[in-house]
Amino acid sequence: MSKARKFMLITLGEELLLGLTQNGHLTYIGDQLRQRGVTLHSNYTISDESDDIDDQFEYCWKRADVLITIGGLGPTVDDRTKEALAEALGESLVFDDAILESIKERFERIGKPMSENNRKQAYRPENAEALENPLGTAPGLWLEKEGKILVMLPGPPNELQPMFASQVIPRLESLGYIDEKENYLQLRTIGIGESALETLFEPVFNSRKSLSVAYCAHQGQVDCRISFPDQPGRMDDLQTIANHCKEMLGEHFLSFGHDSTVTIVSNILRDRNETLALAESCTGGMISNEFTNLQGASDVIVGSVVSYSEKVKIESLGIPEGLIQSCTAVSAEVAEAMASGVATKLGSDYALSSTGYAGPGGGTKENPVGTIFIGLHTPNGVRSKRFSWNGGRLGIKKHALNAALELLRRELISSEPVESDPLNSGAPANT
Amino acid sequence: MSKARKFMLITLGEELLLGLTQNGHLTYIGDQLRQRGVTLHSNYTISDESDDIDDQFEYCWKRADVLITIGGLGPTVDDRTKEALAEALGESLVFDDAILESIKERFERIGKPMSENNRKQAYRPENAEALENPLGTAPGLWLEKEGKILVMLPGPPNELQPMFASQVIPRLESLGYIDEKENYLQLRTIGIGESALETLFEPVFNSRKSLSVAYCAHQGQVDCRISFPDQPGRMDDLQTIANHCKEMLGEHFLSFGHDSTVTIVSNILRDRNETLALAESCTGGMISNEFTNLQGASDVIVGSVVSYSEKVKIESLGIPEGLIQSCTAVSAEVAEAMASGVATKLGSDYALSSTGYAGPGGGTKENPVGTIFIGLHTPNGVRSKRFSWNGGRLGIKKHALNAALELLRRELISSEPVESDPLNSGAPANT
Repeated sequence: MSKARKFMLITLGEELLLGLTQNGHLTYIGDQLRQRGVTLHSNYTISDESDDIDDQFEYCWKRADVLITIGGLGPTVDDRTKEALAEALGESLVFDDAILESIKERFERIGKPMSENNRKQAYRPENAEALENPLGTAPGLWLEKEGKILVMLPGPPNELQPMFASQVIPRLESLGYIDEKENYLQLRTIGIGESALETLFEPVFNSRKSLSVAYCAHQGQVDCRISFPDQPGRMDDLQTIANHCKEMLGEHFLSFGHDSTVTIVSNILRDRNETLALAESCTGGMISNEFTNLQGASDVIVGSVVSYSEKVKIESLGIPEGLIQSCTAVSAEVAEAMASGVATKLGSDYALSSTGYAGPGGGTKENPVGTIFIGLHTPNGVRSKRFSWNGGRLGIKKHALNAALELLRRELISSEPVESDPLNSGAPANT
Repeated sequence: MSKARKFMLITLGEELLLGLTQNGHLTYIGDQLRQRGVTLHSNYTISDESDDIDDQFEYCWKRADVLITIGGLGPTVDDRTKEALAEALGESLVFDDAILESIKERFERIGKPMSENNRKQAYRPENAEALENPLGTAPGLWLEKEGKILVMLPGPPNELQPMFASQVIPRLESLGYIDEKENYLQLRTIGIGESALETLFEPVFNSRKSLSVAYCAHQGQVDCRISFPDQPGRMDDLQTIANHCKEMLGEHFLSFGHDSTVTIVSNILRDRNETLALAESCTGGMISNEFTNLQGASDVIVGSVVSYSEKVKIESLGIPEGLIQSCTAVSAEVAEAMASGVATKLGSDYALSSTGYAGPGGGTKENPVGTIFIGLHTPNGVRSKRFSWNGGRLGIKKHALNAALELLRRELISSEPVESDPLNSGAPANT
């Protein structure tokens, strides 16, 4: 068990403050530390102005055991993190031939000339160690000083994330600053509100005084995290409590841990050697994209047809032209014909379909913007469900994705063979 | 023109620090202020612990003109923002009957009983004004004190965003703290590195001493934002400089403002009354999803086939079985056959295709994981390009998406009629 250390994160870049780029750094670093039993203490997002960097660094260096900075290590003049922090720590910058060599090598590999301003990136604080960056020119830096650790990483996610995983995590591990796993248990629920959930669990949680409980609601799903903050080793007790909660939840139980609905559904299908096809109109490829983001997706997904025109619905999905004319393209009948059509054409056991008005244009009096029909084809027949949501185009697409996944999940758990319980299994069989 | 004020944002919530939820508050508030000529100075993400709130509030209140807090206004005991900040400001909490009334009304509207702990939400700092929350129980709070402004908002995005837009923005406007529009100009570039770009622009920028320049690199694209921070009214001068840069960039010029490649490509196709189809293997629906996120997508996209199995490639795209056997599914030949196949089957002018190994499984010696062929069908023929990327499955899919969009953009701008210049036009004809 690691001693509790205070981890702080400074993220630099005006594009974050201008709302032009999501602060994915916080999500990534927070997630990485959480998986290893550490809760990030705080995150500070500031600009690249030297005064701001100085101010914030002073505040954090006083309070942190481990301070991570992301950004401001690029070759241009507005990249000032390394210079400002070295000065604040009384470190002089030394030119490191080894860093220059690896920058040169990188330019050779990608077949482009090195600009003169890249030489700036070969300087490092005298007591810092360079962390190699195989995917970019800015090395990371690791500096132990005054009993604290300073880690500086470059801003591009595809550069910093592998550097953090392969170079920072092992160093923190060897110092005993992080653990091997989470120190809490998460219970995911679906289709039940936060306050109803709190009321449901009250009798179980209230009798355990040292238990810490936190709820987090997002789009029809509520996650509940439980832990014993003062006794982080009591994972078995947490599991016993969580099992009790699972029983109370019934079909509202989604998963232990962090598996999302798409992962759960994919794992069930894989375990049962069954396949899925998709016929997407209003979701436009979103469902298909979600499934194919998972490794080993080709075990489960045979293919998808995005039918954004009637011609495609008729020719690629085999929907009778008369059906669209008599029922309109946004109807239960067409949703069902799409699901069965794609299952037949592509040869799958199950199929999901979507048709509706994601907006902002379109819609009719009976089926205004936000109305979406989801079709589900199964080995035993086909059915559909009508939904109606508010929100922008992307929000409505996302709602439709979640509803389609949940429709399929309910079908699969109600039809699953009694002898297997893939929802409650350990490691999924991802390939 | 507003006087420059320092805006700071404190976001509260452990789920942000644990990496379980994206900090969308920063993106939203940053974007709202940016659109009104203000750059958010900094964002601090902390937990709901009282000590952390006290510490951070003291730091920010000293430095900010406007301090916005988001979160910690809920009814439960772990919501402490209002209490902590009132105490720090020497404000006593007074019970506000009008707030209680609107909480009661809300519960009546949704037909649920008000629980006793909701009464806590009817207290406000004595000098604060309540900001109505029509979509939740926690009112926002507006407090002017010591020549500064403190705004407290509840955490759920669907509650705080309308409150900010309809109640906070007008108050800031009437005080002259914000403007009506952005005060910088953004130039988007593609296919040229950050350091090469800085070198290219140096002669233009260096002669203008009061010009502020910032670069932001993301996956093959570099954005360059220019402004005159001390003379925010000089937008025409910025445009003249940006036009000069555009000429220097040639085909590396992407757009002025915030349009992404997918928007640019969609607008060109719409203006020319031309259509696009997609045949996606390794990108699995990502390209299609990206296009259909745009409103009016059905003007441009006829449909898409995600071929995650050979059967689909053969039957839905009409690729000869012998071609897959002789060239393998991951080859230039199959990428081209997919593009032409989908254009023919779905009846489009252009088509993009993708086939490759997104990983982590699969790959061959010649074409290891990360190898992807992108096919492009045009009215004048078909061609393809082989790419090779590092990174995880999602990163590789994203690279393939960007490469496909850029391939199509280059084709469109090199073949566009001389009389029109949609890249440089004003409002796009989105429907």
